[in-house]
Amino acid sequence: MIITDLLIIGAGPTGLFTVFEAGLLKIKCHIIDALPQPGGQLAELYPKKPIFDIPGYPAINAGELVDNLMDQIKQFQPGFTLSETAVSLRKIDDDWFEVITNKGTVHRARAVAIAGGLGTFEPRKPDHLENLSQFEEKGVEYFVKDPEHFRDKKVVIAGGGDSALDWSIFLSNVASEVTLIHRRNEFRGALDSVEKVQALKDQGKINLMTPAEVRELKGTNHLEEITIEVNGESQSLATDFFIPLFGLTPKLGELANWGLEIEKNAIKVNNALDYQTNIEGVYAIGDINTYPGKLKLILCGFHEATLMCQSVYSRMNPGKKYVLKYTTVSGVDGFDGSRKEAEKAVVKKID
Amino acid sequence: MIITDLLIIGAGPTGLFTVFEAGLLKIKCHIIDALPQPGGQLAELYPKKPIFDIPGYPAINAGELVDNLMDQIKQFQPGFTLSETAVSLRKIDDDWFEVITNKGTVHRARAVAIAGGLGTFEPRKPDHLENLSQFEEKGVEYFVKDPEHFRDKKVVIAGGGDSALDWSIFLSNVASEVTLIHRRNEFRGALDSVEKVQALKDQGKINLMTPAEVRELKGTNHLEEITIEVNGESQSLATDFFIPLFGLTPKLGELANWGLEIEKNAIKVNNALDYQTNIEGVYAIGDINTYPGKLKLILCGFHEATLMCQSVYSRMNPGKKYVLKYTTVSGVDGFDGSRKEAEKAVVKKID
Repeated sequence: MIITDLLIIGAGPTGLFTVFEAGLLKIKCHIIDALPQPGGQLAELYPKKPIFDIPGYPAINAGELVDNLMDQIKQFQPGFTLSETAVSLRKIDDDWFEVITNKGTVHRARAVAIAGGLGTFEPRKPDHLENLSQFEEKGVEYFVKDPEHFRDKKVVIAGGGDSALDWSIFLSNVASEVTLIHRRNEFRGALDSVEKVQALKDQGKINLMTPAEVRELKGTNHLEEITIEVNGESQSLATDFFIPLFGLTPKLGELANWGLEIEKNAIKVNNALDYQTNIEGVYAIGDINTYPGKLKLILCGFHEATLMCQSVYSRMNPGKKYVLKYTTVSGVDGFDGSRKEAEKAVVKKID
Repeated sequence: MIITDLLIIGAGPTGLFTVFEAGLLKIKCHIIDALPQPGGQLAELYPKKPIFDIPGYPAINAGELVDNLMDQIKQFQPGFTLSETAVSLRKIDDDWFEVITNKGTVHRARAVAIAGGLGTFEPRKPDHLENLSQFEEKGVEYFVKDPEHFRDKKVVIAGGGDSALDWSIFLSNVASEVTLIHRRNEFRGALDSVEKVQALKDQGKINLMTPAEVRELKGTNHLEEITIEVNGESQSLATDFFIPLFGLTPKLGELANWGLEIEKNAIKVNNALDYQTNIEGVYAIGDINTYPGKLKLILCGFHEATLMCQSVYSRMNPGKKYVLKYTTVSGVDGFDGSRKEAEKAVVKKID
């Protein structure tokens, strides 16, 4: 069982920055995310794309912003439950909440911050393969969580976008055989990635099949073979893994059943004070919340997280008043004993 | 007369970032600030000190943040009225406001955003010099607006902190003579600055007088001579300029008489929607506003500015709905014809 002060659901930029603001108030955090790495859609969907409206950054790549946020919060040592989805929330008593994931991991916390973005990102699955679910986690994977999992194995990747291109490139150095199949001849992605796949194909390191679609999955306990229709002709291919990378779709998912007030597919919060939901002690911040004038922007999530943390502090320390300290003046004390601070002025005689 | 869409009072980080968010909505901005350069207290009080709570920056020097914000907004070509203080605000008709500065500059705008931070920074003046005001702008200066103003002149700087140290260092290469006086023997500042002053003093490029205080100012139309008490003894010194750098104190100033609802030395706003004040079309954002749960943090000002801009847009375009666009997806079009955008994906055949 994981016990923390503030449980954050969602490791996107808002969830990550929450750890920093909570840390300043000595509140410990743990984050749950369905994706295998922190960063939410910034890391999963567009890590190499620039964002132009982060204040103070004329341009920053989404992946770099995530790296910087991870660096900014590391001294507050957040815990992570990754590749798991929060499925239930219940109030144990006036002071504690319990959140359990799809894999049964139990989390208990004094307050819960839902920073789930547009919802849980679920992979778009090929819907024409009858026995697909039978091979899930037995050869069919929707994410490359750990590339080592595919070392010296035969891998078939399907898709025509950046994920399919980039993982084909990456795994061509790891797997014993990489086949990339796509239902069109044209790929849509960064020029650089398309060119690299072309080069690897020319070197015989990636097998390319287009226009092609997987028609059948075969195997006893684990995937062993797939049937592919290439250019109208059926063809069998021995493989250990099939990785369809057809994009992700966000779903509110189980959250919708937690008794929270939902409006326009988002969670209603009290924006006049602390972004608390209709359940006291449960907050919603970032793209997942809604209120009059709401904008689904990263910079708004940062503000919401910050005001929320003050409310969590009051909840955890009833009657105690927190006096805002400026980091430039007071420095930042990490939970790991580290300290960041401005260079001190010296008092020195000149003679 | 300066005519703009949104007039921003205060060129601190919140005021500057407003230009960006307004620009995305095709709203033109003009900024008034009492200080000679943009950046507010970040530029004037602690440009070399790190801030640790700007989201996405584990640490950034205040001056660097201002530079980055100026860079981020430059494609929206904001106008600036610097070294002037807004003294009056009046509504001309339902659509227009007029703001006049202490130097008589007239500004007209469709909406006004007060982003005045803690107020107008006014210099702390030496209160024991009878005829001080008589020499203001005639030899007595509280800011170094343009160092060239002091080229080949004799300058006396008073103060014991970073400003006094840093301007003494800088002007030692510009003025014909720099005298630094301080009422104590010890200076309080960055080690580096203290050491540089020591070195320049040893080289005879800065005259140092401690413990010392200015006792009298003399001159006919312009300052010509000052009397200094050094170590208990009176001494006369010919000089063209006297620059007391005793720090700045923020004052709400004339704002307080504009009919705005004031609470705890700050302007009350509607935080449940758009940070509008009790005067429709006049907003207050950043450290100068107050509402339940308000935190005087830069990142909160960024959020407030962003939501406010939507309200200004609605005011200027009644009945027209603005659909939020993401900069990563839609790019950013400057008023100068420039365009920032993510690299486009290519659609390309691999064969």
